Amino acid sequence: MAEHMSQSELDYPFKLLEYFNGFRVSKVIFSACELGVFDLLLRSQEPLSAQHVAQELGTSLDGMERLLDALVGIEILEVEKTDGTALYSSTDVANLYLAKGSAKSLHDMIVYKSQTIYPLWNNLVDAVRSGKNQNEKTFGLPAEEVFQAIYRSEEDMLKFMGLMNSSWVLDGHDVVTAFNLSGFQNVVDLGGCTGALAREMAKAYPSSTVTVFDLQQVVEAAQKHFSQENDAIVFQSGDFFTGEIPTADLYVLARIIHDWPEEKCLTLLKKIYDMCAPGGGVLLVEAMLFENRRGPIMTQLFSLNMLVQTKGRERPPSEYTHMFNKTGFKNIQVCRTGKSYDAILAIR
Amino acid sequence: MAEHMSQSELDYPFKLLEYFNGFRVSKVIFSACELGVFDLLLRSQEPLSAQHVAQELGTSLDGMERLLDALVGIEILEVEKTDGTALYSSTDVANLYLAKGSAKSLHDMIVYKSQTIYPLWNNLVDAVRSGKNQNEKTFGLPAEEVFQAIYRSEEDMLKFMGLMNSSWVLDGHDVVTAFNLSGFQNVVDLGGCTGALAREMAKAYPSSTVTVFDLQQVVEAAQKHFSQENDAIVFQSGDFFTGEIPTADLYVLARIIHDWPEEKCLTLLKKIYDMCAPGGGVLLVEAMLFENRRGPIMTQLFSLNMLVQTKGRERPPSEYTHMFNKTGFKNIQVCRTGKSYDAILAIR
Repeated sequence: MAEHMSQSELDYPFKLLEYFNGFRVSKVIFSACELGVFDLLLRSQEPLSAQHVAQELGTSLDGMERLLDALVGIEILEVEKTDGTALYSSTDVANLYLAKGSAKSLHDMIVYKSQTIYPLWNNLVDAVRSGKNQNEKTFGLPAEEVFQAIYRSEEDMLKFMGLMNSSWVLDGHDVVTAFNLSGFQNVVDLGGCTGALAREMAKAYPSSTVTVFDLQQVVEAAQKHFSQENDAIVFQSGDFFTGEIPTADLYVLARIIHDWPEEKCLTLLKKIYDMCAPGGGVLLVEAMLFENRRGPIMTQLFSLNMLVQTKGRERPPSEYTHMFNKTGFKNIQVCRTGKSYDAILAIR
Repeated sequence: MAEHMSQSELDYPFKLLEYFNGFRVSKVIFSACELGVFDLLLRSQEPLSAQHVAQELGTSLDGMERLLDALVGIEILEVEKTDGTALYSSTDVANLYLAKGSAKSLHDMIVYKSQTIYPLWNNLVDAVRSGKNQNEKTFGLPAEEVFQAIYRSEEDMLKFMGLMNSSWVLDGHDVVTAFNLSGFQNVVDLGGCTGALAREMAKAYPSSTVTVFDLQQVVEAAQKHFSQENDAIVFQSGDFFTGEIPTADLYVLARIIHDWPEEKCLTLLKKIYDMCAPGGGVLLVEAMLFENRRGPIMTQLFSLNMLVQTKGRERPPSEYTHMFNKTGFKNIQVCRTGKSYDAILAIR
């Protein structure tokens, strides 16, 4: 995405046209996921015709053929002709990340992007005009109560939890090992949702106790739908804004601060500071902007996403450091992972 | 978009994440166009602060700042810091293609993509399942009457005409000069809409007479909103499916055939054949698929677009050749331009 716009782009704007088609490429992948194309191709172990895929998945042949061909065009599927019939097979990348059952499946993230984020972004113009999220215009939900909108039904809550769960597949290990955290015995992941990041933490630091703290409805759904056998983590329910938070040596705040305006973040950080023993700290995990505003593009897009969906924003490290300093934390270290999410460690 | 998915993509799927973000990148550019960002930056002739842009365009500062930064991230704008204030300026590419007044402006194409195509693609899953366009689910309009949907109001018709008009800015000259057409005296562009392609034709072949033939309401709107001083083309109204078509030496069919199923195309081609003098012909202009189904990706996406919005499809040259042969045309030549649209010349 960062290829430079050159003179040839002035002669004919290939890159610009590619950007214009971005929404179509996204929806091609998202729709194939939603229809189960990658799951079927992974299960079948042999190349399949469009007719076979369409029949198995209950779709039109014509529509499926065009979808499969577009997936070939972006090199997510492969095609070969045998006796005049086009046979489609998956790539390793699709098997690993796009099929539902895979250990690194991003399926739930994709469903959420397709069904919730894509329609929200249809109102980006209004979001920029008003500076407000578009939950009301898009879904008829109150703009003020961000998590009432996100958790508007059991089904929507589970979709959001699926998003959170599958996004730590990619960056979970990197962010919990960005610093050596083995000295922290008692770790609480505030707003830890399904426990996906907490499990990465427990795996990296097997002698620590890791607790997920989240709203009661979230904890119940996490235990019902996302629990694992011999789970190395524990759950505790509560509201970190309106209620008490448990004591801990290390608090994890992963993609929490970015949901809120600074004032609310400062209130939360102060509450954590007060419960945190000296020598304890906070591991903050967010996608962080460059200080010079020039990127990373993915984080800039996330920040617009926060505008469209929440009351928060993505920030450069200096803004987090400022908030930590303001609430009394010190020894603030920043680690950029080079992937989507970065980490800051702050000590009381 | 055609970079190969490699081993490193298995380690961390940067390319896949870029595809997931495609819809956001599209909407960033579309929204900036709709809000007038590129027009303001072109007019101002000097770099502007986010505050200045937000105030001029009546948007929130916060939202505008994030939008401008994302445009910097994809290198469509530039930013420099002067005395601590970030100042944004346009690139040559944005000035040429994204500002409204520019000779090569794609503004109207972008507005149509943003407001009509983007919401239609939210229902791609249903389109693939049913094999039918999504005008009803997206806009509550009858799926059977494609152009009743597209021309559902004067405003929507003008938006669509803007799309057609601005898309020939890029490819018009190339497709009319794909073959030497100077021998055809009397040229009729069937479904020629605003006349944008006909004007390219008249420019390339100044001794030919070029007529735009389209529905009465389209011709009226073209003359009212898209006419030019000393216009070198003439307009004639009619319906090429239900009514008669004028005689001509050369018929242009640019992005007409792709709207319809084969049977209807054959009926139209037969009607043209019957009106066409021996030695006369058809210039067919479409984005054409490769015979091996592997691309071009843009055309594969267009073909899905035809699924979502019309009753047609994009085709490889062999399918057009087949249709021409079936209706009696001969001497069929195919020219790939290497850009978005290609051309076929067929002679009676």
